[in-house]
Amino acid sequence: MAHVHSYHMTPDEFRHWGREAVEWVARYMERVEELPVLAQVAPGQIRAALPADPPERGEPFGALLRDLDEVIMPGITHWQSPSFFAYFPANASGPSILAELLSAGLGVQGMLWSTSPACTELETHVMDWLLDLCGLPDRFRSTGAGGGVIQDSASSASLCALVAARERATEGAANQAGVGGRLAVYMTSQTHSSIEKAVRIAGLGSQAVRLVDVDSSGAMRPEDLADRIEHDVAEGTLPCMVTATVGTTSSNVMDPVPAIGTVCRRHNVWLHVDGAMSGTAAVCPEFRFVNEGLELADSYCFNPHKWMFVNFDCSAFFVADRSALIGALTILPEYLRNVATESGAVIDYRDWQIPLGRRFRALKLWATIRHYGAEGLRHHVRQHVQLAQEFAGWVRADDRFELAAAAPLNLVSFRHRGGDEVNQRILDGVNASGALFLTHTRLDGRLVLRMSVGAAHTERRHVEQAWAAIRQASTAEAD
Amino acid sequence: MAHVHSYHMTPDEFRHWGREAVEWVARYMERVEELPVLAQVAPGQIRAALPADPPERGEPFGALLRDLDEVIMPGITHWQSPSFFAYFPANASGPSILAELLSAGLGVQGMLWSTSPACTELETHVMDWLLDLCGLPDRFRSTGAGGGVIQDSASSASLCALVAARERATEGAANQAGVGGRLAVYMTSQTHSSIEKAVRIAGLGSQAVRLVDVDSSGAMRPEDLADRIEHDVAEGTLPCMVTATVGTTSSNVMDPVPAIGTVCRRHNVWLHVDGAMSGTAAVCPEFRFVNEGLELADSYCFNPHKWMFVNFDCSAFFVADRSALIGALTILPEYLRNVATESGAVIDYRDWQIPLGRRFRALKLWATIRHYGAEGLRHHVRQHVQLAQEFAGWVRADDRFELAAAAPLNLVSFRHRGGDEVNQRILDGVNASGALFLTHTRLDGRLVLRMSVGAAHTERRHVEQAWAAIRQASTAEAD
Repeated sequence: MAHVHSYHMTPDEFRHWGREAVEWVARYMERVEELPVLAQVAPGQIRAALPADPPERGEPFGALLRDLDEVIMPGITHWQSPSFFAYFPANASGPSILAELLSAGLGVQGMLWSTSPACTELETHVMDWLLDLCGLPDRFRSTGAGGGVIQDSASSASLCALVAARERATEGAANQAGVGGRLAVYMTSQTHSSIEKAVRIAGLGSQAVRLVDVDSSGAMRPEDLADRIEHDVAEGTLPCMVTATVGTTSSNVMDPVPAIGTVCRRHNVWLHVDGAMSGTAAVCPEFRFVNEGLELADSYCFNPHKWMFVNFDCSAFFVADRSALIGALTILPEYLRNVATESGAVIDYRDWQIPLGRRFRALKLWATIRHYGAEGLRHHVRQHVQLAQEFAGWVRADDRFELAAAAPLNLVSFRHRGGDEVNQRILDGVNASGALFLTHTRLDGRLVLRMSVGAAHTERRHVEQAWAAIRQASTAEAD
Repeated sequence: MAHVHSYHMTPDEFRHWGREAVEWVARYMERVEELPVLAQVAPGQIRAALPADPPERGEPFGALLRDLDEVIMPGITHWQSPSFFAYFPANASGPSILAELLSAGLGVQGMLWSTSPACTELETHVMDWLLDLCGLPDRFRSTGAGGGVIQDSASSASLCALVAARERATEGAANQAGVGGRLAVYMTSQTHSSIEKAVRIAGLGSQAVRLVDVDSSGAMRPEDLADRIEHDVAEGTLPCMVTATVGTTSSNVMDPVPAIGTVCRRHNVWLHVDGAMSGTAAVCPEFRFVNEGLELADSYCFNPHKWMFVNFDCSAFFVADRSALIGALTILPEYLRNVATESGAVIDYRDWQIPLGRRFRALKLWATIRHYGAEGLRHHVRQHVQLAQEFAGWVRADDRFELAAAAPLNLVSFRHRGGDEVNQRILDGVNASGALFLTHTRLDGRLVLRMSVGAAHTERRHVEQAWAAIRQASTAEAD
């Protein structure tokens, strides 16, 4: 039979362009420090440089690499820059990037054990490794009643936790008859916005949100939580879930999980703990205060894609009772039935998440842990915390500035004493300079700058340069 | 200052291991055809070969590549095999894999326009390209009131559509006060299970599901849809969403979207069309029957990660009225506020999806379209359809077999006339052989085999070999 014409990239072409793509990434790693951190483009500017119509005929991959440099790069905000101090970090690392490549090359689906057993078993195994690495409670271990699963994000993990909590609270009635009656979900003003988003998506409505009082540090007051739960129960409202945060997004406040957990136990309310960024700190024994009370949690989430050098997406979600999660999310059509599933001897991760399909993300978590070892992860986490603490010291030592919150780990919330306008000018000034990227929040109604130290390659000199730029911007004339 | 010790992979180490990883993938492409398609391992077998504890000290990336071969590969089911005929395809391709590598290397977040403008603008642009490539209605174009967004999966897209539909039906009340009263969602017995899963997650409960009658082919009967909607309205139930499927998972049935859309318009019910696999066929003008009636749809989804050679995850989700979607999913905390968002001049894709964070997935869609060109995509889709049609012809020509459903595109549902036991023996036999991988469904209570032709590298000889193996398994003695 004559050779069939094919438009596919051949393995040899893949070798060629693969080397070019690897070189592009290596070169990017080398030069990212020199690039303006925050993209300095106007809305529509990137799009205007793209051809209006899709190509009729194929182009060589080199054309894409060229356009990546010429068209796309000006519109990139460099999350991998060592001077990226905005939001929370979203680190990539060499081993993780290459494992992502291998995962894409394998192109397997991990929705069921049977659709690629290694994809499921490696994930279960490496999630158990994370428990050891971080000193997390045994109740989340897959060899007992619990287990871990990789989600794309803490938002999705929260939604899964909430749906499981909803079904536990309603004894499965919500999945059947819909969310009837009144349910309540407890959080604080400092809880991540994804929790209220989940409350809406899950059909509880924002009216289910109870904002529990916070103390002067912004941490949840367990007594107020207990009062609100008791009040709701008395009024016929069903307490559904409490979310405690270990390291809030605004200012890294630690909710008192042990006391919150005790309240939850007393009232049999699902406790979800969100440690999205700060959870990684637990690789260091001296920072394991972030784990306090987790033995009382029904679910816990932290993001190796933030501070553990696994490229997004890799959110580690643990449950103490996997049957509650699976019961809430399972649905089995004929075309997915198989012997392994029916044997009950395997995990089908599709029942642990919103989507059906799933990538082989365990590979990049495995690669990253193996590359760094526990030792390497501890080293870099410690270094980031130390740099943040030095920065906090500089803020304290400068009369013009003040800390806006405690800095227990790697996030320093601070402000110029000159008021919101000065702080806004600092923020706009440093971000427009391209030298670094900072973001803000509001605490007690006042504008606060957030110095989040956690980009993989941030060294002391980057933090020093950032502080110098901040101080300079605070004294510069307004335009 | 002394050089700080670092555990990070250096750019030069990345070059070295990157070349090795590219070589591994290239070699995989070359040998995947020779590997048993369905992994032949027992539950727990892969996990048992992994070390119990995470490593204290780091290891070279080469150790991972070695274990990938020795430990992981026996547990891989090869979705990229040209003899993968199970489920629906989940194709990777050279350009897509390399763009995934570039995306991981850049490591940017696309949650807001401002967090990397190019990530958002390229996505908007390439989603508009898809409209042109597939001849989709202009109402989904970003330059009007609509727009496209990349989701991880059709499941997530369906959930987003449902939440938007829920809010439109309740005039925003569900997001505020929760799902009160009774809502109804219309589908058929052939609708993908992810829709009922979404109904549960969104708090409507399975009781909201209305299974509309199907005709003898399995397609939704629009008259019965109209009857059920009218009945629900009369009883005080609020019709929320209708899901029509263009190419069902079981047997590629096409619901009559034009007639369904007319009913939806009359009753002002949100119409979501699920074209997860078959939607890609529209790159060929002769297959644009899959688009019929889409001008009446409020949302539409198809998966370039199935049949358009973009590696998972890349589900293309379009809405006609983006404000309905954004209104249902937006929530804006202080730490995400920024000038661009407040100007209203940009898209923030976090408001178009469940999670907050998002990868730069547009890069792989862009790379794939540019590599193949419209011409190349058409060629391969046509070839797959032709091969499936040839296979259907062989089934028809063999008295022992029969088609179990029409085969409008690349999925052939068929069975041996000897009954379920024979078909089960065929299924088990060919899958255990490793020569190919088939899955099944049930139609009218009977076991049906599904021959899904769509793996990127499937050629005529693979389909011929599959048919030979199927025929042989049908005559083999049972063990």
